[in-house]
This record gives sequence, structure tokens and C-alpha cells, in this order.
Amino acid sequence: MARRIRQAPGGTLLLHNNYGKSRVRMVKVSRKGRVHTVREFTVDVALTGDFDDIHTRGDNRKCLPTDTMKNTVHALGKKHPITSIESFAMRLAEHFHSSNRHVERARVSIQETAWERLNSRGKPHPHCFIRGGEERQTCRVLHAHEGPYISGGIESLTILKSTDSAFSGFMRDQYTTLKATRDRIFATSLNAEWNYLSDPERPARIDFGACRSAIRGALIQTFADHKSESVQHTLHAMGEAALRTCKAIHSIHISMPNKHCLLVDLSPFGMTNPNEVFVPTDEPHGLIEATIVR
Amino acid sequence: MARRIRQAPGGTLLLHNNYGKSRVRMVKVSRKGRVHTVREFTVDVALTGDFDDIHTRGDNRKCLPTDTMKNTVHALGKKHPITSIESFAMRLAEHFHSSNRHVERARVSIQETAWERLNSRGKPHPHCFIRGGEERQTCRVLHAHEGPYISGGIESLTILKSTDSAFSGFMRDQYTTLKATRDRIFATSLNAEWNYLSDPERPARIDFGACRSAIRGALIQTFADHKSESVQHTLHAMGEAALRTCKAIHSIHISMPNKHCLLVDLSPFGMTNPNEVFVPTDEPHGLIEATIVR
Amino acid sequence: MARRIRQAPGGTLLLHNNYGKSRVRMVKVSRKGRVHTVREFTVDVALTGDFDDIHTRGDNRKCLPTDTMKNTVHALGKKHPITSIESFAMRLAEHFHSSNRHVERARVSIQETAWERLNSRGKPHPHCFIRGGEERQTCRVLHAHEGPYISGGIESLTILKSTDSAFSGFMRDQYTTLKATRDRIFATSLNAEWNYLSDPERPARIDFGACRSAIRGALIQTFADHKSESVQHTLHAMGEAALRTCKAIHSIHISMPNKHCLLVDLSPFGMTNPNEVFVPTDEPHGLIEATIVR
Amino acid sequence: MARRIRQAPGGTLLLHNNYGKSRVRMVKVSRKGRVHTVREFTVDVALTGDFDDIHTRGDNRKCLPTDTMKNTVHALGKKHPITSIESFAMRLAEHFHSSNRHVERARVSIQETAWERLNSRGKPHPHCFIRGGEERQTCRVLHAHEGPYISGGIESLTILKSTDSAFSGFMRDQYTTLKATRDRIFATSLNAEWNYLSDPERPARIDFGACRSAIRGALIQTFADHKSESVQHTLHAMGEAALRTCKAIHSIHISMPNKHCLLVDLSPFGMTNPNEVFVPTDEPHGLIEATIVR
Repeated sequence: MARRIRQAPGGTLLLHNNYGKSRVRMVKVSRKGRVHTVREFTVDVALTGDFDDIHTRGDNRKCLPTDTMKNTVHALGKKHPITSIESFAMRLAEHFHSSNRHVERARVSIQETAWERLNSRGKPHPHCFIRGGEERQTCRVLHAHEGPYISGGIESLTILKSTDSAFSGFMRDQYTTLKATRDRIFATSLNAEWNYLSDPERPARIDFGACRSAIRGALIQTFADHKSESVQHTLHAMGEAALRTCKAIHSIHISMPNKHCLLVDLSPFGMTNPNEVFVPTDEPHGLIEATIVR
Repeated sequence: MARRIRQAPGGTLLLHNNYGKSRVRMVKVSRKGRVHTVREFTVDVALTGDFDDIHTRGDNRKCLPTDTMKNTVHALGKKHPITSIESFAMRLAEHFHSSNRHVERARVSIQETAWERLNSRGKPHPHCFIRGGEERQTCRVLHAHEGPYISGGIESLTILKSTDSAFSGFMRDQYTTLKATRDRIFATSLNAEWNYLSDPERPARIDFGACRSAIRGALIQTFADHKSESVQHTLHAMGEAALRTCKAIHSIHISMPNKHCLLVDLSPFGMTNPNEVFVPTDEPHGLIEATIVR
Repeated sequence: MARRIRQAPGGTLLLHNNYGKSRVRMVKVSRKGRVHTVREFTVDVALTGDFDDIHTRGDNRKCLPTDTMKNTVHALGKKHPITSIESFAMRLAEHFHSSNRHVERARVSIQETAWERLNSRGKPHPHCFIRGGEERQTCRVLHAHEGPYISGGIESLTILKSTDSAFSGFMRDQYTTLKATRDRIFATSLNAEWNYLSDPERPARIDFGACRSAIRGALIQTFADHKSESVQHTLHAMGEAALRTCKAIHSIHISMPNKHCLLVDLSPFGMTNPNEVFVPTDEPHGLIEATIVR
Repeated sequence: MARRIRQAPGGTLLLHNNYGKSRVRMVKVSRKGRVHTVREFTVDVALTGDFDDIHTRGDNRKCLPTDTMKNTVHALGKKHPITSIESFAMRLAEHFHSSNRHVERARVSIQETAWERLNSRGKPHPHCFIRGGEERQTCRVLHAHEGPYISGGIESLTILKSTDSAFSGFMRDQYTTLKATRDRIFATSLNAEWNYLSDPERPARIDFGACRSAIRGALIQTFADHKSESVQHTLHAMGEAALRTCKAIHSIHISMPNKHCLLVDLSPFGMTNPNEVFVPTDEPHGLIEATIVR
């Protein structure tokens, strides 16, 4: 049931619009006796629907404040067990979609920051945690009339292999100066997003945590073991491994910057540098992206 | 002419891929006698095409190194007059598209950072410049078989109005606590992107600089003058004004965070606060987005 | 009157301590009829004094909460005219110092972000503002028994000159590969801090705004006009100019990164590059610092 | 042997100056058979000495280029085993100090970013690594005529405890609104720097790695176990524990922001919130600092 696009008074069309609240942060502490668990989330909510009058007439009667979205994240965050970020995102998206008839699509994205339990004198500490790295666990749920679309993901997982990476036999033109190499450092900050097979009847049946763990493991293990001829070559193998390991997903999109480590030329100082000393650089960087589907 | 998608050995499909170099930086100094001009650019290049063998076989024969893309930006940056970032992006995209038969689409994005000429003793200084704010002038060119798609844009233009902004009469549900207001601060960091009408015969005829200047002016002036009932309301008026002022564009997408300035409650100290003292916040923030077309 | 340092039970000494609230943000809107003025501040407060029992015994009786410091910034921010950040910092520092007998030193730092009034149809707009660049106006006030120490400053003023900068005749050792040049780009992000002559009787007599304006102008003008033999050479001339232009200060500390712009080697492509195309880099960077006194 | 400060022609004095190269990055790969080790460093070099003529006359004869410092870091980085960042910093500082007679003090700071070896199928992978968190291992060495001063440190170690933290019984004034609490989240991003006892004869005898490990462990363990009455109270206990655990240091400076997690008020929605749902905030934040000595 597509919404009819109305022409605005000025002769223009409001082709698309969405609005919501971004970067709603929440820490949730759960307790089992003396043992606490701490999780930290950042939630983005965006709604699409019949909001034309808000734009064209300044009529806010269909405008649920973004402040209310923030409150809703906190209130449902208290009620919901949050066994997975995907299930919490589904609950939130369903809430925004079902409680407002003029909302056509509700999109909820969640980013989780890891807090690792402290190991203290050989035992897990009941209530002390150390923040993990830049890596974020992510998900996106789009709730529309035809049921939810669910994706999981990883952002900024920074990994490096110090060998088993080559780049040679490439195309050359008049601006090519790069030398081929059979051994280089391969460093990247992995971003991946995978889409779950849609089964509107029972999305809750998917074990999102197990899928995430298997996919993350397959991506890293393949990166580590692959005899890489290029970033593309390894990225593709990683995507295939993810699809192989988790039958519940039908596609995966991977984006990998090539965080170049440049070999330092020590020859002016009468020294050789057999792949020992490198300068890591942030910019420019290669950027390789692909979507692999079943 | 769509490329046939081939099935990879593993039973998966490489649905989409692109690769390129991101954040290629360049400063260009031009000279007219003693008077210098300095411009700073950051360029992203991304190619899409028949790169399947790179991914699936580790065969790099069709892989132009991203290092070559960087070199090309610098070499063509020297040759090209860069009268506008759009014309330079067109030149680069055309180069990558035309010189490699297996490239189906070449996308070039450029971001320009302003360097403002120093005013020195009432006169423009010939060679000293002060860096402008966070605002960036941007463009994107997509070069494909059917001709270029060209868009211009602005990122991170941070503007604030201290009155003529209200938010009232909005929807309420069980999680709504926000109070209506007829007078508040409205602060945002504007991102906009407009699409030029495509005329493959003569894209170069567009005066991109004049369009940019007119659109930017219309966006800011409308923000300043609008009696705002909501971010959506003002965003829409801004988009309409942009379309009105520049006939060469057919649509504009605007994304505006609501960078909330919260009124401080001074009543615990026996003081009133008639819209004088606010706390600006970065997160959470509202995010309002719309695309308006002719 | 120095505080006696007491030995803690564990045989250690608490040599020094300070505590406070950092990054207290505030926007203040002032009104003259229809014309508004908007200013944005970030305030840091730090107190030093007899706080040993807080540390060693967990006794908080002398601990004014940092939350109270935040409230104080907002409450005094409402009451105070804030004609200059220095005068507001003095007021705050004096408040914290005088109202708590066990506070030996109160340090208040303020950073101001510029909001420039929009020029609209040739006239200043009454209530619309555009955020300026990364440059910040800063000050620090230290309030102690013997009277206030006041400094002003500038942070992150990014300036560039495209000629009149050389670096030659320098020392060489076995690790030197740099080539001398008589013409290069000189780009920096200036940080400066100047100290006002202390006159405990009447610090308020100083016209901080006029001093700041004169010093900032002298720093930029000297950077622009100097025939630079090195960053050091120009930094020193800038510091001397600042001391010359403002008799109310007795010293200035300047810190200037050398934000290298590397000339691109286009010779592999059969092209020359007579100081036209450069790659700006963020790291590594030179860092030159000096304190110049009367 | 202090350098005589000379008056500059303009009647000013160059009281202090230093110059150097900052953010020199280096990745070093070491190999034992098939097993690689990867370490990443960022080095800052700063020299103080008789550099007046560079500033006042534009005479560069005593100016070793900062580019040479960068080269030196890479060349010595190749030669040196880098068993600890402290020993490498000592080597670098000694080099700059001893090879240039007019250098009075050479200061070298190193920051190390962790790369953790991948655990792959239950075994350590020979050449694949995952980047650790924001935590950095740091050191500073100051080499002067009278021997080196050596400090080690930690930056941005982000830790959180979800109970055993109170803040009550504090001072109140007219601007105090904070409520006392006997149970709150305590989150911080620890920065610490400790100073080694100087023994110019044999600094190399210190086992810097063992000291670092013991100090880091004592800081975290104390944070975890302490019954905290305030950030100050816990910080002090942490400093004492560090001094107790490592006899080779004579003092430690700790700086701890109080990264407030605010309890969400769910009462408007008819819900209680017994320390379950919090909003983590970045600003403003408390900042507590102390130096504890033997």
C-alpha cells in the first residue's frame, strides 16, 4: 500500500522523507545475585510515512516528537530482556510501526559497544568491566507492512596479517608507479552487514547471537588463513565463508579499507628493510566493497 | 548494457562490487603574477565493472591499482584548471570510465575545504589564507555508458537561529514528556545534495559555481527568515527555495540534525531563565531528512 | 601560605591534587530589542586545596560536588554580562576561591566558539548565525591568595602562506635526506597563550577584548608578511609582534605544528610541478614551541 | 650547566623553546621462524637547547630538520630490539642528546597501540592480529646532562564498575542540587604516569615490562575491589597500590574523568528504575587528578 505523493503548493513534490532520533545512548545493568552484566547501546530510530503536512503546512498533529522516541528506547530498554540487539530492535521497530497508523516504515539501528568482564585473580569479577576496542556489533531492523527486514553487522573490526598477502600482475597505465609485491602487510578495518532470510511468521526463531558469533569467526578466520592476491580476493573469500557458516542469512555486504602500511626505504642510511619497518597511514586508503548473495 | 552476473565456484553470486581510493588529498596553488590562489580538495574514486575474476580467482589483470587512481588525481589536478569541483570530477570520472573498457561506472566525489584570503590592512593579501569552518563544498559525478549524473552539495554548514522557531501541537503517546514551545533555539549542521538535470550533450554548459552560490544562499536565507513550526517545516521550505532559485537542478536532498540546545532550569537557585542560558548537546539528536523534486 | 603535606597511612604522600568539572557547555542569548547575540562557551573548573581527607579517608565533607560547579557556571552565566571570557572566568574563579575556605587555588578555563552573524541581503540578520571555523578564543584564570593570574589565548587558528617561506642551510647528519628549499608552503594551526601583567588591585582595568584583537591581528599579520627562514624564525617574529602591540602582557607562549604540504613528484608522468600540486598531511608533523617574554 | 638567555634585538627574551617531530608512526614486524610479532608505535621527539639563532636570526646551522628525526626513529627502530618502549625511547633520546652538542635536553615520548594475536582454532595464529581497544601504553624519557628521567604510563584505559561506588556526605552550597547516592556506576578512562627512581648508572637494569604489568594490574584490581566513597578516594587507593607493587617507581600521577552514567527517570511512565537503565554522557565530566609519592 504505497502512499500517494502529493504535490506541494510550490509545485514541488516531497518525494521522500524520514525523521527520528539518532545516538540515543543507554547502559543497561542486569543482575543475577552478586553477578552483574553491563551492556552499552546506541540506538537510531527513523520513521517514514504520511508526514507531508508537517513539512508543507507546519501541522504537527502526526508528529511524534523525537524526544518521545528517546524515552521509548529507555522505557522499552527497561522492560525488554535484550537477549540480542536484533530482538530489541525488532521490539522497538514494531512499537513505532504499530502504534502510529500513519507510519509506513520504522527503521531501528542499534550499535553495541563491548564491555569485557575483568579477569581478577584468575576469576571473572562480578561487577568490573574493561571497555573493548573500536569494534561495534550492529543491527538494523526495518518494520513495514510486509514484515520485518533484519540485518546484523560488525563495524570497525581492525585486523592485520603480516604475511600471506600479495598484490601483483595488475593492470598498468601511464599513471601507474606501484611496484608489484608478493609479500606485504594487509591491514583493514572491517565493516560487514548481513541480511537474514525473511520469514515474517517467525523471525524470533533465529538465534541471532549464534549467527553473529559464527559469521564473525568465519570472517576473521578466513582473513587470517587466506593466501591473498588482493583485498578483493580475500574479501570475497570472507563473504563466501560467512554465507557457508550461517544458513539463516541470504547475503552479506563487506566494506574493507586497505589501511596501507608503507615499507620504509632505509637504503639512504645503508640499511636494508626486509619487511620489518613500516609506516601505517590513514589517508589516502583503498576502499573495497562487495555484496555476495546465495 | 548490463553485465551478466556469474555464479562463483562456491555457489554464491557476486552481486555487486566497487573499489577505489578514498581521501586522496591535494592542495593546488595557482598564480596570477604575485597573487596566489590556494584550494584544498579531498577526492574519492570508486569503480564498478567486470572485476569478478579479481574477486573469485585472484586474477588482477583487470585491476588498476588504487595507487594509480591517487596518481591520476594529482596528475590531472595539475593539468586541469579546476574552475569548479564538478568539472574536475567530470574530467576524472570520464578518464577512469573511458580508459578502461571493463569499467561500467566511475564515481568521483570531491570535497573542498575553504581557505579564505586574509584581509590585511584593508586589502586582500596576495598569498596568506585562513582556513574556513567545518563547512565543505561537495560534488559527485557518476560516469556510466548513458552519460554523467552530476550532483553538488554542502556538508556540515552549522547554522543557528535564536528565535522564530516553535514546536507545538504535536502528537503525544504514553512516552511523551516534551513540553510544547513557541520559542526555542534552532541549531543544525546542514547537509544537502542537489542533482543537476541531465543533458548528456552538454553538462559543461552549467555554471556550477553560480548554481552553488545561489542554492547555498537560498538555503541559508530561508533558514533565517522562516517562521518555523518544526525542523521538517523549515527543511521543506529550504528545499523549495533551492529548487526555485536554480533551474538547472531537478531535486534536492536535505539532511538536518536537530542539535538541541536545552534550556537550563535555574529555578532551584531562585532564578528565571527567559530563553537566555542553554546547554548545547551533541547526542542524542533529532535527524530530519527529505528529498524534494520538481 | 602553603598547606602542610600530610603523610597518608600507607606511608605515601599526596603531593598534589585537583578536581573539578570539565567541558561545561553553555550558549547564552542576549537581546537588545529585536537584535540577538549568541555566544557559546565551554568551561573547565579545577580546584586545589585541602582535600586530603577526601582521598585518604573517603570523607567528603569538604568536597563540593563537580555537579555544583556545573550549576554555578550556568547560574553565574545568567547573572554575569560576560563582556569578555576573561572577566567571566575571573568571576567564576573568585566565586570558587572565596566561598570555600579550604580552596587554595581555583582555576577556570574558558573556550569560546565563534558564531558569526549572517549577512542577509546586505544587512546583519537580527537572529541568525553561522558557526565559524575551528579557531577558539581561550582564557585561563588562576585565583589564589596572592591574586589572580590571567592569560588569554587562541587555539587552532589554521593559517597558510603559499610563498615567502624557506628552509635551507640546516644541519645534516647521517639520517638527513631532506632537500633544502627556498620556496615552500607554510601551513600551521596556531596555538598561543599570553599572560597579562599582574596587578592584583585592578585586573578589571584591562580591556581584554582590545588586547585579544590586537594580539590576534599582530600574530596573523606577521605570519603573512614575514620572510620565513624556518617555522622558528617566523614564530619568534610573531611573538615579538604580539609583545609590541599589547603592553598589558608580559609574555607569550606559541605552539605551531608544521602541517607539511608535500610537493608531488609528477616526473614519472613526464610532468613538472613548479610548486603547484601538494599533498597536505596530518602526521607526522613538526612541532615548534617557544615562550617569549619582555 | 644552564644556558645563558640572550636578549633578542627587539628587547625581548626567548625564555624557552623546543622543537621536534610529533606523531612519527611505525609498525615493526619481528619474525621467529613462522611466528611473527607486530607492534605499532607513535613517537614524539622534542629538543631543547641553544637554538636562539634559528629564532632570532633565521640562521639554521644548528637546526637538525624534524624530517631527520623521523628518519632516525625509523632507522633506529630497525636496529633496536625494542624489548620495551622505555628502552627504545632511551636509545632515541640518547642519540639526539649525544650527537648534537648544542642540544641540552632531548625528550622522547612513545605511545604503543596493542595488536593482540588472533586465537585461531584454539591456538595462537602465527601472523594474524586484532587491534586492541583505545588503551595506549606510553613512556617518556628526558635525556639531559644529568642523566635520563624515565616515566611509564597508560592512557585511555576505560573501566567501569556497576556497584561498590557511592557519593554522599558532600558539601553543599546554594548551587548544589545533586542527590547523595550509596550505589552508582563508576566509569572512567584512566590516565596514569609513573616516574622511575633515577639511577643514572644503570637505568637499563629496570625490568620495564614487569613494572608496567604489575602497576597496570594493581590499578585495575584496586579500582575493581575498592569500596569507593568518591573518585578521589578510589584514585588515591589505586595510586597507593601502584607504589606498593613496584619498588622501582617513586611517584605516580593519575588523572581520572568521571564519565557520568545518569540514572534515567522512568517514573513519568509509571515505572521504577532500580539502577538498571542509565544514559552514559561524555560532557560535562568530572576530572580528578592527583600525584602520590613515596
